[in-house]
Amino acid sequence: MAGYPNAPPNYGYGTPPQPPYGQQPYGAPSAPYGAPPQDPYGAAPPPPVVAYPPAPGGSPYGNPFAALMPSQFPPGTDPSLVACFQLADQDKSGFIDDKELQKALSTYDQSFSMRTVHLLMYLFTGTNTRKIGPKEFTQVFYSLQNWRGIFERFDRDRSGKIDANELREALLSLGFSISPAVLDLLVSKFDKSGGKNKAIEYDNFIECCLTVKGLTEKFKERDTMYSGSATFNYEGFMLTVLPFLIA
Amino acid sequence: MAGYPNAPPNYGYGTPPQPPYGQQPYGAPSAPYGAPPQDPYGAAPPPPVVAYPPAPGGSPYGNPFAALMPSQFPPGTDPSLVACFQLADQDKSGFIDDKELQKALSTYDQSFSMRTVHLLMYLFTGTNTRKIGPKEFTQVFYSLQNWRGIFERFDRDRSGKIDANELREALLSLGFSISPAVLDLLVSKFDKSGGKNKAIEYDNFIECCLTVKGLTEKFKERDTMYSGSATFNYEGFMLTVLPFLIA
Repeated sequence: MAGYPNAPPNYGYGTPPQPPYGQQPYGAPSAPYGAPPQDPYGAAPPPPVVAYPPAPGGSPYGNPFAALMPSQFPPGTDPSLVACFQLADQDKSGFIDDKELQKALSTYDQSFSMRTVHLLMYLFTGTNTRKIGPKEFTQVFYSLQNWRGIFERFDRDRSGKIDANELREALLSLGFSISPAVLDLLVSKFDKSGGKNKAIEYDNFIECCLTVKGLTEKFKERDTMYSGSATFNYEGFMLTVLPFLIA
Repeated sequence: MAGYPNAPPNYGYGTPPQPPYGQQPYGAPSAPYGAPPQDPYGAAPPPPVVAYPPAPGGSPYGNPFAALMPSQFPPGTDPSLVACFQLADQDKSGFIDDKELQKALSTYDQSFSMRTVHLLMYLFTGTNTRKIGPKEFTQVFYSLQNWRGIFERFDRDRSGKIDANELREALLSLGFSISPAVLDLLVSKFDKSGGKNKAIEYDNFIECCLTVKGLTEKFKERDTMYSGSATFNYEGFMLTVLPFLIA
């Protein structure tokens, strides 16, 4: 029985190789809506804060207790963001748990369901610990700022909702090119009226972005050759999909 | 790069070929707990009702409007089941919608969340139409009866809850052999106390069974060679996973 080819040497969680020019799976246009060229189904360009100081005790990857230690704000972080973290960290643990994050986001923006909060925490930590430190808080902050801007750009009539076509364009501007069938599924899930309005409000737009971004990244981890196909064993498939159901 | 082997002629939604004796992927024991041998990661043995009469107008596969027509009860169906359907079908449409099913199940058993009801409907119809006819109602009825029996068998102290170890045994008796990592994820999702009790109540047990059964069947559809691996393209992956998030 034909098996799957052995994993290439660069298999794993590192940065995947860029596909050769012109070889773009999943049908993404090369420059959607005037945006700079980017990964066809990848995430938005990284937020300005990217260089984190090494965690105390050396590289976080070399320290088995790194996940238990609060991360740090990068030098030069906007003081209002640090203040925002300290305000959210009500028990002064150095971490923000799910309830604290939900409260913090609800005062800053709109209200987010606990499911959205858990999905945020899962995708920015890669674990189910449901705690984030300053580093992840910074990432969450800039991602939400980015997504808020995109939502407002497409919500042209300021109704607080975007329709299916605008959702497709918004996801495309984030680098995700999705088919009409996938768009239909997303709208049927994230439309609060159960499909009657065919429109998505801001909080559900965030959950939609998190879902598409998270699933696409999981797929990419398995598609290291940019062939457009990803192979899973049963265990890997279950461990990939279940966290999205768990939030 | 090497692709996935071509789909064998019987690729699709039919009954997969039985693996050769002794070749059982996913590590399921050959006869868990004295149960008759069955598909190692498959569903429970089919309920007694399996032979449906052809839909009016010929084979349901040949009639493009088959999905819009109510199915029929097989001859000899338990009259109390027919009465149950008629009671549930409050608007006498010949179909039961999500709200009607939720109400019917809540009087028969415990209460089920709308998410569980939607997952039931998706898995027994293969669509997002959120309506079931007599045929699907019969299948839902016998599956729930089967799962109820299994839950009660493992809830030895009649607490209304089963613990992680009992959940593992219950899933095994349904033919699903899951790893400790998958078990942990399932318990963390389906424990209503958010992981404190490490115990699953009946309604969440049903949702857990539906999730494991549904994801495993989707995986199997792609693992036609019983190699233990399944390959998806991006579109197929998204269309496979999103319905489980949508319910």
